[in-house]
Amino acid sequence: MKESPLFWPVRFKDNTIYILDESLLPHKATYIKVKDYKGACWAIKEMKTLAVGQVLLVLYTFLLVIKKNKLKSNLLHILENVAKNINDTRPTISLKSLTDMVLVWAKTPACLENNILGFLASLKNKRIAQAKEASALIKDNDVILTYCNVSGLMPLMGNFCRLQKKEISFYVAETRPYLQGSRLTAWELKKQGFDVTIIADNMVAKVLSEGKINKVIVGADHLAQNGDIANKIGTYQIAILAKYFRIPFYVLCPPKASTKTGKDIKIEIRPEKELLEYSGIRIAPKGVKAYYPAFDITPNELITKHIYLKV
Amino acid sequence: MKESPLFWPVRFKDNTIYILDESLLPHKATYIKVKDYKGACWAIKEMKTLAVGQVLLVLYTFLLVIKKNKLKSNLLHILENVAKNINDTRPTISLKSLTDMVLVWAKTPACLENNILGFLASLKNKRIAQAKEASALIKDNDVILTYCNVSGLMPLMGNFCRLQKKEISFYVAETRPYLQGSRLTAWELKKQGFDVTIIADNMVAKVLSEGKINKVIVGADHLAQNGDIANKIGTYQIAILAKYFRIPFYVLCPPKASTKTGKDIKIEIRPEKELLEYSGIRIAPKGVKAYYPAFDITPNELITKHIYLKV
Repeated sequence: MKESPLFWPVRFKDNTIYILDESLLPHKATYIKVKDYKGACWAIKEMKTLAVGQVLLVLYTFLLVIKKNKLKSNLLHILENVAKNINDTRPTISLKSLTDMVLVWAKTPACLENNILGFLASLKNKRIAQAKEASALIKDNDVILTYCNVSGLMPLMGNFCRLQKKEISFYVAETRPYLQGSRLTAWELKKQGFDVTIIADNMVAKVLSEGKINKVIVGADHLAQNGDIANKIGTYQIAILAKYFRIPFYVLCPPKASTKTGKDIKIEIRPEKELLEYSGIRIAPKGVKAYYPAFDITPNELITKHIYLKV
Repeated sequence: MKESPLFWPVRFKDNTIYILDESLLPHKATYIKVKDYKGACWAIKEMKTLAVGQVLLVLYTFLLVIKKNKLKSNLLHILENVAKNINDTRPTISLKSLTDMVLVWAKTPACLENNILGFLASLKNKRIAQAKEASALIKDNDVILTYCNVSGLMPLMGNFCRLQKKEISFYVAETRPYLQGSRLTAWELKKQGFDVTIIADNMVAKVLSEGKINKVIVGADHLAQNGDIANKIGTYQIAILAKYFRIPFYVLCPPKASTKTGKDIKIEIRPEKELLEYSGIRIAPKGVKAYYPAFDITPNELITKHIYLKV
């Protein structure tokens, strides 16, 4: 089955990390080359890669640092410093559970690289299984509303539906201000021949009320122990609206973090400028402020079903 | 009290209509000159002026046509043709009730101009009274969430609050795709010294859940007999969210139309391009579709209180 470029948007080859620059999609599909952990942290902060891309980037960054420093006696210390820098990039994404995992592995240096490579291979298989599980929830002719971007899982799920002889189509809410919905999800779905209709984020109640949508399926950036999720800002209100219109709301989840509930997840506040400008063009008048929380929490009770990444 | 330029955005002088070009705000405040009904219909269709601006433009257009043709025996026929062209511009706005009113007046040609001028003077006073009535609902230190643009009524309401020694501040949702919230409302409020914070349309649930907002106040483009309203797309979901978070949802209404319920209001579907491009820059990938209903219906039961334009 053909993979979306966003399914595995970061690659590692010859001590160089190649990051698909999601900020330039859908106009250009170019790769940023990164050769040290500082470049990797910059790419995460600047949102050059998102969601699974950030997970891959963290693991490949460790792989890179290990390859460069494996003969050094202070390797553990070096890795701890890399972990600290990664943890500080974006507070809401649970990168710390990843860096903690690598630091535990680092206590057995001989197996360290294999542990990372094994984790990545297993992640790939689990994500494919997750898309397949999601496809089983879908009926022939279903229209799916999705939001933001789930790193290649939407087209993969759609392809599983095709194998099962189910035709599906998509509505994608554009996801201001970074427009992951229209720039990334619509792009990867269209590339694989799916029928895609874009709406603005303010049209969700209207399309749900018109009976246009059978299921809402979104991803998550953080899954707490109690089932609450953090995902791209705007997910919460879609979940409330889905409940109001009695439409199932499914979440494709990352691994569970150690956070107890959604209240314990720290929400990243992004720069005002990202909301007040588009492509360098100022939208708003001078002197106004903006509030841009990058994520919101959708409580467990609004989620019809979690589709877990099976351990 | 100082008026927002958007409170009376269309003027008439020396047989010329001057229309504040809302599509260029907040960067430029320029006026389009119109000298016939065709130019007026074009300006309505192209959304150069909105809400009350469209009402003023319709009435000034009749005034212009009457002044040019008042000695002609077929004046009524000419006015009927103008009315037809105006009615066809945008289906959701209830311009027909306005043009019908003028056609009734036209049966007594001697009073026609005075009837129009009297209506406009009265409209001005009624709108001021409406803003004052809204201000009475507000408490000191309230934070108001508003949406789209209510043609100068928000700053006017805010100024009444100031007279009553109440300090208020505003959150404005940007209102994709035409951005009336960030371009128009934030601009007119900031111009008059109010504290304004812009959010994206997908952040409403988040800010309501954080207890940041005390009241939601919006306008309406169409008021049906049963209290349902049509307003800019996105209003409906804000009303549902306000109900969910138990925050009062107030509507500054236009005169009641003859339409019985919201279901009888025809919703205008705008061109896909307006959603898929921003300032001529293509946002979305090629081949995707878009759905852009310009308005949605908020049912009466979600409205805490209608603030009517008193007849």
